[in-house]
Amino acid sequence: MNVKIIVEYDGTNYCGWQTQANGESVQAVIERALGTFLGKPTKINGSGRTDAGVHALGQAANFFTDREFDRHRFVRALNALTPADVTIKEAEIVPEAFDARRDGRGRVYEYHILNRSTPSPFHLHRAWHLHETLDLERMRQALSCLLGEHDFSSFRAARCDAAHAVRRIYSTSLEERGELLVYTVEATAFLRHMVRNIVGTLVEVGIGNRSAEAFIDLLEARDRSKAGPTAPPHGLYLMAVKY
Amino acid sequence: MNVKIIVEYDGTNYCGWQTQANGESVQAVIERALGTFLGKPTKINGSGRTDAGVHALGQAANFFTDREFDRHRFVRALNALTPADVTIKEAEIVPEAFDARRDGRGRVYEYHILNRSTPSPFHLHRAWHLHETLDLERMRQALSCLLGEHDFSSFRAARCDAAHAVRRIYSTSLEERGELLVYTVEATAFLRHMVRNIVGTLVEVGIGNRSAEAFIDLLEARDRSKAGPTAPPHGLYLMAVKY
Repeated sequence: MNVKIIVEYDGTNYCGWQTQANGESVQAVIERALGTFLGKPTKINGSGRTDAGVHALGQAANFFTDREFDRHRFVRALNALTPADVTIKEAEIVPEAFDARRDGRGRVYEYHILNRSTPSPFHLHRAWHLHETLDLERMRQALSCLLGEHDFSSFRAARCDAAHAVRRIYSTSLEERGELLVYTVEATAFLRHMVRNIVGTLVEVGIGNRSAEAFIDLLEARDRSKAGPTAPPHGLYLMAVKY
Repeated sequence: MNVKIIVEYDGTNYCGWQTQANGESVQAVIERALGTFLGKPTKINGSGRTDAGVHALGQAANFFTDREFDRHRFVRALNALTPADVTIKEAEIVPEAFDARRDGRGRVYEYHILNRSTPSPFHLHRAWHLHETLDLERMRQALSCLLGEHDFSSFRAARCDAAHAVRRIYSTSLEERGELLVYTVEATAFLRHMVRNIVGTLVEVGIGNRSAEAFIDLLEARDRSKAGPTAPPHGLYLMAVKY
């Protein structure tokens, strides 16, 4: 039986989604809970990695088991076995061939910026705090160039191991949501640090250290060395994986 | 010089606003920071108490000092001296006669309910998690009786030390805000546990354990023993104090 789960996590205390030599991972926490519930070691296959400190509201994963169970009971039991910063939101039986990583057709990310003079206890580790005044219209102008298929080498991390840098962005927008400025982007898949590099450069545009035109030229230049700094991980949320 | 400050805090780690024999209070944290900044022990006068675990986005307080300072520098310095779960948002010089407690003409509270089947890492200690289906229309029907001046004895805590239980509610509403159900209420002042007792009883109406009519009858009865349980403190937020 192939089971798909949707996971929500606060990434603050984790080395990221994927199990690594150093630090606790979200994947390891879920695999331990599954091992206890199913009575044998069980590996899960996530839709993709998230970095240390990055959050998720809709990470997807799948695993195989030969044990039958009621899915509501399963979700309740698993949440009793995981710490409070990792929640299994849903579980469903999927066709044998389903692969959470390979079959993902789109990923939606949000990046949260708290744009006010003082920090907030309620956004600590959960949004990038910027006290500078940001010009939203100029930021939106810059963003428009990202739509569609492009070579995103300018926004790719040095250690990115993808075969090539061409990706398709389906939507990209910037909205005010209460005290937060929220950048939303959907693409087939993302390069390593791609969203954080876009946001870091976009903030330079918002502050006025880079023009919207220079942002657009940067995409064409395919040169990471000309981009802005990588925005911190704690503002980033994996919202959904589309199949 | 009389200085008014606006304070935002996550109440999770505090015994409440007011300094008490046991546990750390928000007031004590701010008074220590002020003592360091001003170079001498300084007491602050809050608009009112909040209980252990209750949060604030807009608590108000005032203090007296003979030291002159730039208010932007003051806010930055004080935030460097307080822990990350307490933020001074604003400071302004006010007339000598201003008293944050006595002069408050209205207090606005919000109560946050996370109404879904699973808990959320992002609302832990910050919203009351209820997995039961709630009937919002019935809850709104019940709420309408609270508007205006009433004797709120039915929603008063046993240990409440107010002289009488008559208060005026200016507005009361229930709205869906993303995943949250938010109850907002504004009154001149509140009795001890009044908002939490209203919410605890209101949730009984939403679940179907009490009718909207029975809620209305309860207000008339002026009898605390007939109300529902007190909702937990961690869903409650002091939003603003009006002067």
